[in-house]
Amino acid sequence: MFENEGVGIEPEAAEPKRRAGAKAERTRALIRDTALASFRERGYDDTTLRLIAQEAGVSLGNAYYYFPTKNHLVQELYAEVQREHRAAATELLAGSDELVDRLGIVYRTGLATLEPFHAFAPGFLTAAISPRSPLNPLAEDSAEARELAVGLFRDAVAGARHSLPDDLARSLPEVFWLAYLLLALFWAYDRSPGRERTLRLLDGGLRLLGLALPLARLPLLRRPLRELVELVAAVRA
Amino acid sequence: MFENEGVGIEPEAAEPKRRAGAKAERTRALIRDTALASFRERGYDDTTLRLIAQEAGVSLGNAYYYFPTKNHLVQELYAEVQREHRAAATELLAGSDELVDRLGIVYRTGLATLEPFHAFAPGFLTAAISPRSPLNPLAEDSAEARELAVGLFRDAVAGARHSLPDDLARSLPEVFWLAYLLLALFWAYDRSPGRERTLRLLDGGLRLLGLALPLARLPLLRRPLRELVELVAAVRA
Repeated sequence: MFENEGVGIEPEAAEPKRRAGAKAERTRALIRDTALASFRERGYDDTTLRLIAQEAGVSLGNAYYYFPTKNHLVQELYAEVQREHRAAATELLAGSDELVDRLGIVYRTGLATLEPFHAFAPGFLTAAISPRSPLNPLAEDSAEARELAVGLFRDAVAGARHSLPDDLARSLPEVFWLAYLLLALFWAYDRSPGRERTLRLLDGGLRLLGLALPLARLPLLRRPLRELVELVAAVRA
Repeated sequence: MFENEGVGIEPEAAEPKRRAGAKAERTRALIRDTALASFRERGYDDTTLRLIAQEAGVSLGNAYYYFPTKNHLVQELYAEVQREHRAAATELLAGSDELVDRLGIVYRTGLATLEPFHAFAPGFLTAAISPRSPLNPLAEDSAEARELAVGLFRDAVAGARHSLPDDLARSLPEVFWLAYLLLALFWAYDRSPGRERTLRLLDGGLRLLGLALPLARLPLLRRPLRELVELVAAVRA
């Protein structure tokens, strides 16, 4: 509805429209923040749109207007997390053109952005792991957030000096993103203080990647590696 | 209770005991098979012990006697699947002392044993993925089935000629088992005919492993690899 109000708008009507847009954005953000607090307190499963609306002091109809289902709300959170992740990574990425360093930046800022969600990771995994769940990161409904996330890995690869074969470089961002999902799975299970185990796993994985990447050019390894990367990258197909 | 009946039993009482044991085993198997059929028809979530008892023609009290909770029933299915898996792998393992071949045998027979469960894999993932779920393969409650599964990978490594460093060889069965869980995750998402994509991923992974394993002896790779393997193997800690 708000979108349609813009059709044929006169210049003098632009100011109220801008204010209405700002108010809508505030309401969305309020619902989002209230949802997050509720996920933390009640867990993901026991949080309903009705409860969120109540606690945000927003009418249920209004809450439904912005988020017709809990899925819509989570998709908005996904996209929001991705935008934060990109913002946190971008500045640091400007400081390095080493592929493994750049990947490290993207993975580490990603984990830091996820951290506030750790308490409800178990309930969230439960809701999202089924291949049939619209919350699944591989699902149709998650396309926007996924594009943002894969795009960040694409930037990490594109801005790096490396001598990887082109075909491999093209598929790698998707594979690095899938590796990030697996890292997030490990993180969800990690109860060590400061997620120290996840960070050590990441560091070890990156060190090994740095040692192994030059081998990817060996003719013997290149073809099986490419096949594997393509299979993994196409997990969504 | 049945277990206690064996205490101080006289030789002439052994035959009725044996028959009672056989009857108990038949009832367990009946409940198990009925549960499987129900998982397939209703999905994992909508299957209750009450429904299973009804369909098996067993009193609810009797069903509860064997399986106090749905978790107990699933743990029994886990263990049963592991026994089938071992039976399917053992004969084939006798025919090879190549590490990668042997791993291929364990992975392939494992996927074949899982296949009848593919239809309810999504509901099952949902029930088992939470780190807090007793159905989680890493959970305390799943220890019996897990020991059987890791034991099979241990046999696969122990019966192979290889020149891997000892410390690595010790941790690897656990890592290969975790890789199997990830393969099963990929399989759960795989809708290709005959799970052709999962099998190709497996073949590609094994080929790459075969090429990469000799490199594990290189001093440069050996330490970071060992650290990584130990971190991954300790995911349960």
